[in-house]
Amino acid sequence: MSAKEELFRAFPVVVTQNVVWGDMDAYEHVNNVVYFRYFENGRLEYFRRIGWFQIEEATKVGPILASTQARFRRALTYPDTIHIGTRLVELKDDRFSIEHNIVSEAQDTVVTIGDGLIVGYNHHLGAKAALPAALVAAIKALEARS
Amino acid sequence: MSAKEELFRAFPVVVTQNVVWGDMDAYEHVNNVVYFRYFENGRLEYFRRIGWFQIEEATKVGPILASTQARFRRALTYPDTIHIGTRLVELKDDRFSIEHNIVSEAQDTVVTIGDGLIVGYNHHLGAKAALPAALVAAIKALEARS
Amino acid sequence: MSAKEELFRAFPVVVTQNVVWGDMDAYEHVNNVVYFRYFENGRLEYFRRIGWFQIEEATKVGPILASTQARFRRALTYPDTIHIGTRLVELKDDRFSIEHNIVSEAQDTVVTIGDGLIVGYNHHLGAKAALPAALVAAIKALEARS
Amino acid sequence: MSAKEELFRAFPVVVTQNVVWGDMDAYEHVNNVVYFRYFENGRLEYFRRIGWFQIEEATKVGPILASTQARFRRALTYPDTIHIGTRLVELKDDRFSIEHNIVSEAQDTVVTIGDGLIVGYNHHLGAKAALPAALVAAIKALEARS
Repeated sequence: MSAKEELFRAFPVVVTQNVVWGDMDAYEHVNNVVYFRYFENGRLEYFRRIGWFQIEEATKVGPILASTQARFRRALTYPDTIHIGTRLVELKDDRFSIEHNIVSEAQDTVVTIGDGLIVGYNHHLGAKAALPAALVAAIKALEARS
Repeated sequence: MSAKEELFRAFPVVVTQNVVWGDMDAYEHVNNVVYFRYFENGRLEYFRRIGWFQIEEATKVGPILASTQARFRRALTYPDTIHIGTRLVELKDDRFSIEHNIVSEAQDTVVTIGDGLIVGYNHHLGAKAALPAALVAAIKALEARS
Repeated sequence: MSAKEELFRAFPVVVTQNVVWGDMDAYEHVNNVVYFRYFENGRLEYFRRIGWFQIEEATKVGPILASTQARFRRALTYPDTIHIGTRLVELKDDRFSIEHNIVSEAQDTVVTIGDGLIVGYNHHLGAKAALPAALVAAIKALEARS
Repeated sequence: MSAKEELFRAFPVVVTQNVVWGDMDAYEHVNNVVYFRYFENGRLEYFRRIGWFQIEEATKVGPILASTQARFRRALTYPDTIHIGTRLVELKDDRFSIEHNIVSEAQDTVVTIGDGLIVGYNHHLGAKAALPAALVAAIKALEARS
């Protein structure tokens, strides 16, 4: 089984995109900063899949990224196609943590591992907030599917 | 003592720059990805101050960023001026870890904390490598000064 | 015929990609700077299709972007899929100009028009240079196909 | 007179910033896309200086960038400090055009020339709009000073 197939099996949300030439820096590798944009692309797709944007309109509770990390195993170069997997690690009342794996098609392996901690925030009250019940249900349904 | 003064006292390398409007995203806050560019600016200035670019030419041993993390305490907005502090946390034979604090002038506090793990890499041999003695000496001298 | 179909008919090189959330700025539209990355993605794919990277290795003559322009007709927003068309406008001995059209799937129309002037540059001699014959032939062949 | 002094004499708004390592691409030059961020930094400072953000709140008429262009004369590299000059070229009822010059300290010359066309847009009405009288007066006052 290819690294891509394993990723699609293990992660409920996978975003596929091309590495573009401008993602590289003067070392002719994809710049470290760009991986956090890749993670963001995965995270936002995860949010879209659980319907958070609609839930946010109804409840005023949206996401705040409290922390994020990347561990770089291998360098990416242009041209390549990558698959950004995102899945739940832990779900609490007012926060949840996610994990990202980025697979390179050219290298057929996971090149970078990332994580993120997302906290509920009520824009109306300007304060941290419990995750809405509809959101928790959507996360559980999405993760159960994989 | 202001947060800026504390930063300059505690960190041997501080880079000062303006938050630009384009650093913000659709939430009208500085985007999470941009903080890793801020860290990179601090890290590269640290490398410049310890003379790594010259040492790299002589020894072929350059830096690889193995991992990096950000913890976001408060949001930044345009306009503001930030100070990015970088200092050593731990020095080993073939790697060292650094820490970043970003101070906002407008908020007079540390808004984001980051870290990075840097590994020595010999471009000639294509393999991890011990940190050159000249580099270790320069790191110690820089940190002793603060 | 959809705007996308017209684009694929009129432009020999079309790059398709998703608008990502982070492409937007504080006005909640894709930021003007990002369009030049879109153009670069189209331009580099054009270069790849005419085999310039191989020709550059053999002749030492590579591309320099001398100027570029964008005219913004309509704003893009996330989520959307765009198609970036690139085609030749004028071919001279030592330079050629290209044109970009960006089509939004959501809006089914051309949202942005761009152009670029590319000049041949001999990295070995450090001077402007005539376009290699193989490159001129490849451009003509690519454009004839469409 | 240095190129920097000439710039400060000829342009009413000048933004100074450091070229950062991450502004460079795989050719080890500042990437073409980054210059449009430099222009944006100059343009936004110009807007701030004429008080457009306050005028926008009162009149609902804000700026839209209709087109922009860059002509690249010389490449920038890290490290360097640049000065981004912005000035009015032509003022009309519902739009005005501006010009940018970017001076490199290391090269003591103008490395890039840019322009932009800004159109008034009433967010409340969702339509193009005449420039508010207070804005026109502020532009004229700013330009008269230089």
